[in-house]
Amino acid sequence: MKILALNGPNLNLLGTREPEIYGYETLADIEAEMKATLPEIEIEFRQTNSEAELITWIGETRGLYDGIIINPAALTHTSLGLYDALKAVADEVPAVEVHLSNTHTREEIRHKSITAPACVGQIMGFKGFGYTLALRALAHSLKSS
Amino acid sequence: MKILALNGPNLNLLGTREPEIYGYETLADIEAEMKATLPEIEIEFRQTNSEAELITWIGETRGLYDGIIINPAALTHTSLGLYDALKAVADEVPAVEVHLSNTHTREEIRHKSITAPACVGQIMGFKGFGYTLALRALAHSLKSS
Amino acid sequence: MKILALNGPNLNLLGTREPEIYGYETLADIEAEMKATLPEIEIEFRQTNSEAELITWIGETRGLYDGIIINPAALTHTSLGLYDALKAVADEVPAVEVHLSNTHTREEIRHKSITAPACVGQIMGFKGFGYTLALRALAHSLKSS
Amino acid sequence: MKILALNGPNLNLLGTREPEIYGYETLADIEAEMKATLPEIEIEFRQTNSEAELITWIGETRGLYDGIIINPAALTHTSLGLYDALKAVADEVPAVEVHLSNTHTREEIRHKSITAPACVGQIMGFKGFGYTLALRALAHSLKSS
Amino acid sequence: MKILALNGPNLNLLGTREPEIYGYETLADIEAEMKATLPEIEIEFRQTNSEAELITWIGETRGLYDGIIINPAALTHTSLGLYDALKAVADEVPAVEVHLSNTHTREEIRHKSITAPACVGQIMGFKGFGYTLALRALAHSLKSS
Amino acid sequence: MKILALNGPNLNLLGTREPEIYGYETLADIEAEMKATLPEIEIEFRQTNSEAELITWIGETRGLYDGIIINPAALTHTSLGLYDALKAVADEVPAVEVHLSNTHTREEIRHKSITAPACVGQIMGFKGFGYTLALRALAHSLKSS
Amino acid sequence: MKILALNGPNLNLLGTREPEIYGYETLADIEAEMKATLPEIEIEFRQTNSEAELITWIGETRGLYDGIIINPAALTHTSLGLYDALKAVADEVPAVEVHLSNTHTREEIRHKSITAPACVGQIMGFKGFGYTLALRALAHSLKSS
Amino acid sequence: MKILALNGPNLNLLGTREPEIYGYETLADIEAEMKATLPEIEIEFRQTNSEAELITWIGETRGLYDGIIINPAALTHTSLGLYDALKAVADEVPAVEVHLSNTHTREEIRHKSITAPACVGQIMGFKGFGYTLALRALAHSLKSS
Amino acid sequence: MKILALNGPNLNLLGTREPEIYGYETLADIEAEMKATLPEIEIEFRQTNSEAELITWIGETRGLYDGIIINPAALTHTSLGLYDALKAVADEVPAVEVHLSNTHTREEIRHKSITAPACVGQIMGFKGFGYTLALRALAHSLKSS
Amino acid sequence: MKILALNGPNLNLLGTREPEIYGYETLADIEAEMKATLPEIEIEFRQTNSEAELITWIGETRGLYDGIIINPAALTHTSLGLYDALKAVADEVPAVEVHLSNTHTREEIRHKSITAPACVGQIMGFKGFGYTLALRALAHSLKSS
Amino acid sequence: MKILALNGPNLNLLGTREPEIYGYETLADIEAEMKATLPEIEIEFRQTNSEAELITWIGETRGLYDGIIINPAALTHTSLGLYDALKAVADEVPAVEVHLSNTHTREEIRHKSITAPACVGQIMGFKGFGYTLALRALAHSLKSS
Amino acid sequence: MKILALNGPNLNLLGTREPEIYGYETLADIEAEMKATLPEIEIEFRQTNSEAELITWIGETRGLYDGIIINPAALTHTSLGLYDALKAVADEVPAVEVHLSNTHTREEIRHKSITAPACVGQIMGFKGFGYTLALRALAHSLKSS
Repeated sequence: MKILALNGPNLNLLGTREPEIYGYETLADIEAEMKATLPEIEIEFRQTNSEAELITWIGETRGLYDGIIINPAALTHTSLGLYDALKAVADEVPAVEVHLSNTHTREEIRHKSITAPACVGQIMGFKGFGYTLALRALAHSLKSS
Repeated sequence: MKILALNGPNLNLLGTREPEIYGYETLADIEAEMKATLPEIEIEFRQTNSEAELITWIGETRGLYDGIIINPAALTHTSLGLYDALKAVADEVPAVEVHLSNTHTREEIRHKSITAPACVGQIMGFKGFGYTLALRALAHSLKSS
Repeated sequence: MKILALNGPNLNLLGTREPEIYGYETLADIEAEMKATLPEIEIEFRQTNSEAELITWIGETRGLYDGIIINPAALTHTSLGLYDALKAVADEVPAVEVHLSNTHTREEIRHKSITAPACVGQIMGFKGFGYTLALRALAHSLKSS
Repeated sequence: MKILALNGPNLNLLGTREPEIYGYETLADIEAEMKATLPEIEIEFRQTNSEAELITWIGETRGLYDGIIINPAALTHTSLGLYDALKAVADEVPAVEVHLSNTHTREEIRHKSITAPACVGQIMGFKGFGYTLALRALAHSLKSS
Repeated sequence: MKILALNGPNLNLLGTREPEIYGYETLADIEAEMKATLPEIEIEFRQTNSEAELITWIGETRGLYDGIIINPAALTHTSLGLYDALKAVADEVPAVEVHLSNTHTREEIRHKSITAPACVGQIMGFKGFGYTLALRALAHSLKSS
Repeated sequence: MKILALNGPNLNLLGTREPEIYGYETLADIEAEMKATLPEIEIEFRQTNSEAELITWIGETRGLYDGIIINPAALTHTSLGLYDALKAVADEVPAVEVHLSNTHTREEIRHKSITAPACVGQIMGFKGFGYTLALRALAHSLKSS
Repeated sequence: MKILALNGPNLNLLGTREPEIYGYETLADIEAEMKATLPEIEIEFRQTNSEAELITWIGETRGLYDGIIINPAALTHTSLGLYDALKAVADEVPAVEVHLSNTHTREEIRHKSITAPACVGQIMGFKGFGYTLALRALAHSLKSS
Repeated sequence: MKILALNGPNLNLLGTREPEIYGYETLADIEAEMKATLPEIEIEFRQTNSEAELITWIGETRGLYDGIIINPAALTHTSLGLYDALKAVADEVPAVEVHLSNTHTREEIRHKSITAPACVGQIMGFKGFGYTLALRALAHSLKSS
Repeated sequence: MKILALNGPNLNLLGTREPEIYGYETLADIEAEMKATLPEIEIEFRQTNSEAELITWIGETRGLYDGIIINPAALTHTSLGLYDALKAVADEVPAVEVHLSNTHTREEIRHKSITAPACVGQIMGFKGFGYTLALRALAHSLKSS
Repeated sequence: MKILALNGPNLNLLGTREPEIYGYETLADIEAEMKATLPEIEIEFRQTNSEAELITWIGETRGLYDGIIINPAALTHTSLGLYDALKAVADEVPAVEVHLSNTHTREEIRHKSITAPACVGQIMGFKGFGYTLALRALAHSLKSS
Repeated sequence: MKILALNGPNLNLLGTREPEIYGYETLADIEAEMKATLPEIEIEFRQTNSEAELITWIGETRGLYDGIIINPAALTHTSLGLYDALKAVADEVPAVEVHLSNTHTREEIRHKSITAPACVGQIMGFKGFGYTLALRALAHSLKSS
Repeated sequence: MKILALNGPNLNLLGTREPEIYGYETLADIEAEMKATLPEIEIEFRQTNSEAELITWIGETRGLYDGIIINPAALTHTSLGLYDALKAVADEVPAVEVHLSNTHTREEIRHKSITAPACVGQIMGFKGFGYTLALRALAHSLKSS
């Protein structure tokens, strides 16, 4: 089982950026935690600030990955192109959306997810630990489908 | 560690009600799965169709439970009273919201959660397995706080 | 053929409550009129102010009743839980929604029905006589399906 | 007792047009069914695709008809002129609005009726049988007023 | 100077239809009053319930009439086609919109005029006398342009 | 018969301010034209930039004036206090609202009049000549009531 | 004079629940304060988390109580059924709505009261002391009607 | 203890203006009633139709008054400047908003108060008696803060 | 292959009406251009100002025409009846919607097409040449289906 | 070069009013700073709580001033009359709008400026220093036009 | 004549991605079809997932290309930057917008085009064949301007 | 003091693109003007059409720059990611938003800034000169903080 874990804009700043909202873990901490939790799953872990790069990566998953874990960050609420990309591969490469913070407690614009309807499910509010939950959820989905 | 797991209106019908949306597991299956996953956690598992009963149960948790897992079902989108109840105990008894289906793929009215801002986080779309994820999330939150 | 006739909040006051809107008939009058019209149909007639009780009753109809006639009163416009309950049994126990008044002539909030999309059809504006029409409509639907 | 039964745009296609929504009966079937049900009532049955013709016909009812049964079809949701016409004769010639389908289960634009507030009541979702119900409803209204 | 005076849906009922809103004058009274007030102006006075007929008549005014007085009745608030027609001839045949009632005191839907932006001006609330005012306004506009 | 003619904010600039919208006439021209048209009516003609002063003047009309002609200018669209003032005296001192421009052809915010529902009627789009029409309209209303 | 004082969902937690918003008084404190202020008035003081129970209690007041003081808590903003109940008895048993906090300073959803239009008046922002004011207001209303 | 009682636009007409909404008491009656109720409090009682004057008076209260009772009338729903003024002195000179009528039963525009969030609380619907309640509320607030 | 080309309200004025928006071609020019472009296709070309006539013509196409090209003009944005008509025959007689102007550059009300969802596709902004494009598009659709 | 600097409601309180939002400078400090920065420009500096006075002052600028710097405070978001005044003189006396705070970080109602479209530009968020920037901006605009 | 044909996000997946919506043709098929149809026109055909790259390419067209055919895919509905780019070159390098699907039959968010107002026209719903139509349309526009 | 000056999509076209809106200056002119005005400040001046590149550049400012001047162009109104980036560094590297045009006089979509709430302040409408003002504003902010 091989998973592509994607991180969107500004997540490279994790650990230093508004830690009261996003937590003190860095992306590297999260990657390590994911790999330690379910070591039998191969995880390709990437970050980019570019919507285009995320779309390209997702479009290339068919046949190479079994599933996607994605934290689209701000693009969650604005990118129809990301939704289209996830939808385009959803029949073969299902995705799980994860957010560090509970977006329902933040600005109105963050209450609606454009990308979530193209995913199997969504997990939010558990900071870095949410990625590990997403990994378990995705593994479970893949096994039971 | 003692957790109160609450289920809202119509969830007693689980397993027979629109299984293509909600899955074929019954509430009893889910309860068993939760208890098997983290047996060291004591779980009190309840269902009711009554908003009032949910509010009363939540209001009584202070000092008796360490956390709440709640699937408010339809009340997620309409009950300010449930939000108030969760908020009233949130400082001592944090809650995690769970949904069987991915509500973002359903009717507009189910895209907004009134109760989620009073919770630590939210997990949706993984059918019965989501409860187990919620249990792990809650346990992790309680340990790290 | 066995029908469950359900009445929501405040309908116990019928006959005394704003009769220029709701008419002078009591619920007992309506029950009697229904039973006299199509005596070959067995009718269980109930009223409650509780959304939870309505949901519970509807959830128990499968296998016991052939159809539901429901006047959800104020819950028509606010209860997603009632919609879910009706939807959960709709494949076996179809429902007809009835209103005493023509809700389109009243406050804006009463122009939209949340429960109607889970029903076969809707009848409004004919005061107590509407229940008898609903009974005929339901009987006709059951026969032709 | 003499009733004018009016049918709006596209209803001439009934029986062939999207029968899964509108049913397999033709307007002629419906007319026959109405006349057979309450043969003591004289029914004038008409269809037109023209809003203007409907308005004219309604404006001429005073003194000639005791009531109107109207299925305004698409005009239900767009025609203020039809509302004005029904309102203009409502004190002497009350109307009942009927719809073949349950419009609440269809597009958003069909959830609001502009014409209904000028009618005594509304019946929807029972296909052709709804006209017969409307006839009974109108006859009952006329007798009790 | 030759003027085309147009009246929309349901105005043929004037004098009998809801006189507390529209007044007791008939269209014939209004026509007579207009002709008596400024007898030097030739007035062609028409009524129709048909939007199409109004559009056709307006489209034919170029070269035949100097101006239009129009009471579009309910079409004021719904007909973009009427707006287009008035706009199409506005450079040569200016129009004045007139309403019997003060539409601002009535239903929300009557607060917005779709046709008014294609007219020189608008007069409302003075019952039949408004037509005479519109005639003076139009005559003044034509003279000063 | 004694009339109070009121002019709101910025109308003191008339003749110089955006003449393509408001015309080249000054307020003095309009006052003279009104007085020349119906010399038997006594007209008190005032302008102020102050909402408070307009409210005070209107509140003092009872017993002193037979009617009001008012061009509230920008306050038309924002002043609930002016509406309240006009409403407070409307049973004895009816008002007619007049606008120089056709507000329906301008910014969205000018399409809704807050003050018009407290007036007998409204005249717009005929530049300064509209005041004279308003005077005729008011005189006619007063005579026929 | 006999008054029914009703308290809605979560108010049983008063004194411990977010005291910076709701104050440190308990319901028992408030009840005592009310009874001490106007001892000549008999007060029946109740709390429930159930909308249905509130509706039932209100529906039974006719002939037993002279007035109602109600703090519907979260139901203020969501319960049309409560509005209907208050409206159903309003001609004989007038109600006063009271809120501990100034809801205008809180979330958007709390700015609109669904129940207030069925009451004589509303008092908010004075914590527990507001109940005493409501009692005075109700007593005054009952005396002067 | 010294209180400034402020009254906004059109309240000078009280007693004569739409008494079925506002009551038959004059402002002088209300002032007398307030002074008689709690004679130990010094009350400065003013009315103005001017938003600017209200803002100026409020801005000058610091150090001179202990609190403000204000009925902003129509400005309640439109004046952000009044909100700013009340907010500017709120830390030293708290205010209570009072309305004669229950604004929730009136036009939509009166359902929202712009000024209330800058006040301690709000009292509405008890006609002139509401001022006395506001006085008690303010005195109680000042004592307990 | 036989095509019905339909033109809605005001298009009879083409060539003289606001040519900067609609172009200088007349309907006859467009008809000639269409026939010259694909002479092997039989084209019936009609215009009417009547929504009812358009609906009737569309309803009669089944079995007589292979496809429809329609410029509904203003009815594009207001006529649900036209949508219903196109939908009713869409399985056998597909339609292509054409507009002379680019409606996205015009008034807000012209940005939404009610009729387009019942068509195969839409072409706009190419003045009269758009009809020829629509013909090619329709011919291609018919061949490939 | 002569500039009129205008300050709206509550700005007389500057320095004492919510200094964390508006800063500790007084209007006098700002006036002095402006005059010191570009001493070659003559500045008339005024404050008023009255919308009417601002309108009057702006209406009198033609021929007397070369430009306007205006902080309309709360009127920014509510006064169409102020917009009209600025627009009326904009061809000869251009204006620059200035705000002490960054209104985009405050309440929703402060996100929209009604007056800004009548100005050359807008400067916000730099507390008292913004006036000096506005002065430079206006001087630059006047020189380059 | 030289044309730049641009394709936005996810269109590289064409032929495999949801073919029931987008068709079975690949971009290469479409490019070949375009070049075969009007071989005298030179076509530069590109695809990118990057909004920035599209903007850059458009900004460089002036002097190098005679026109643009663009399918902005998801960016149609979200990219103001793309609109700005098209607008910036529109006077010299006109664009035609093309969509494979009929976006009016899809999600609400796809009903509004942000980029279309910067184009000459729009063609949608004809799958790959739409590009050829767009080419003809653009060629015709260029010849007739 | 070292400042990063950032320019978003399409600004590379400055000087040729719609100069009546954006002015005739090029970016190079603006850069030169900024450096000449406050030569003691080191300015790094960049432009990109890529949202991702802007986000990356902003994320790297901490420790390298003292402040940011940013003209996000179209991204102002659509990019939540840019807002997040500015917010992430705002405690150490404050930003000032600048616009060439007065966006309030343009399309509705340009009236709301998503990025402004993450900035100290905003300057708009002064074409290229606005950058120099922003520089002064930023320098002043940095000195006084």
